[in-house]
Amino acid sequence: MINYPNKKSKFVTKKTNHSNRGMSFENMINETNEYYLVHDIAIIHKKPIPIQIVKVDYPSRSGAVIKEAYYKVPSTTDYNGIYKGKYIDFEAKETVNKTSFPLSNIHLHQIEHLQSIEKHQGISFLLIFFKAHDEIYLLETKHIINFYNRSKDGRKSIKYEEIKENGYLIKEGYSPRVDYLKIVDKILLRK
Amino acid sequence: MINYPNKKSKFVTKKTNHSNRGMSFENMINETNEYYLVHDIAIIHKKPIPIQIVKVDYPSRSGAVIKEAYYKVPSTTDYNGIYKGKYIDFEAKETVNKTSFPLSNIHLHQIEHLQSIEKHQGISFLLIFFKAHDEIYLLETKHIINFYNRSKDGRKSIKYEEIKENGYLIKEGYSPRVDYLKIVDKILLRK
Repeated sequence: MINYPNKKSKFVTKKTNHSNRGMSFENMINETNEYYLVHDIAIIHKKPIPIQIVKVDYPSRSGAVIKEAYYKVPSTTDYNGIYKGKYIDFEAKETVNKTSFPLSNIHLHQIEHLQSIEKHQGISFLLIFFKAHDEIYLLETKHIINFYNRSKDGRKSIKYEEIKENGYLIKEGYSPRVDYLKIVDKILLRK
Repeated sequence: MINYPNKKSKFVTKKTNHSNRGMSFENMINETNEYYLVHDIAIIHKKPIPIQIVKVDYPSRSGAVIKEAYYKVPSTTDYNGIYKGKYIDFEAKETVNKTSFPLSNIHLHQIEHLQSIEKHQGISFLLIFFKAHDEIYLLETKHIINFYNRSKDGRKSIKYEEIKENGYLIKEGYSPRVDYLKIVDKILLRK
């Protein structure tokens, strides 16, 4: 059984996030991916949350009801898919912290996963939403690894300024809302 | 709520599948993917089953218990990942039918998804396990689409002989168990 601190608000109560146009970060990204899908730009989906199912009831022939289940630790990242023939893989995180992004927000095996993707010629990164600044950054895996390695004997977070310096600010828009593929285009050009 | 005929045996009782070395098809593929992962050959994962969570309890601070949830129709396929820099996407299905594979086993939107992946330069296919023959075939998306189009005004299944003729038989082995990437290599050579 996993300590999953953010899950409570996510499922039981409606999120009351009033920053960045009143929408949760997850929904903002899902909406963006939907835009990419409908316009045949990319096929990128959020993976379902991994669940360990223990008990299922069958009150009727047509419907199964899961009566007992638990959250599992995700073995990979939340989003993956294909864009311009390239494999895309990323994790999205938000923080209310003004000055830094705590590395405890990402599991070590997720960082390792992102690193493997790069090794296999995919494009992997982290999207970070600083709610206090109403800003979203794309931070490439190579930087995440550097900051993670530094954290082993020091600072357990990435400073906001460091993300500003090493990451890409994603310009906000209406449609698509979080146009992160514009940044991926820059990364592809460079590679 | 979805009619999900195979889910019952999957979660409530242990599968008693004695063909093909006593292992469920899903586990055979998961084991293969684990082999690919550990040997740094490819990063391919099964996506979690999509669930609509309705009610969650918090009996203790450390653990959330899902008390009511429902199966959702998957919007994509079960497996995706990266191999030799290529985006890989497939669905795996088993049948006890000796003479044909019923097309009702695949959702239309899954076929559409496989088709989109090809369009975006990914590699997509179907793995079909004929339990009665103890044989696994890889059938590329282009064939699935042809057979699907034919089914609109006729036969609602693909004949075993047609799969033999158009698909690739995957040689069985111990490690990896279902070495489908060997077939993907052939496809990549041709492309």
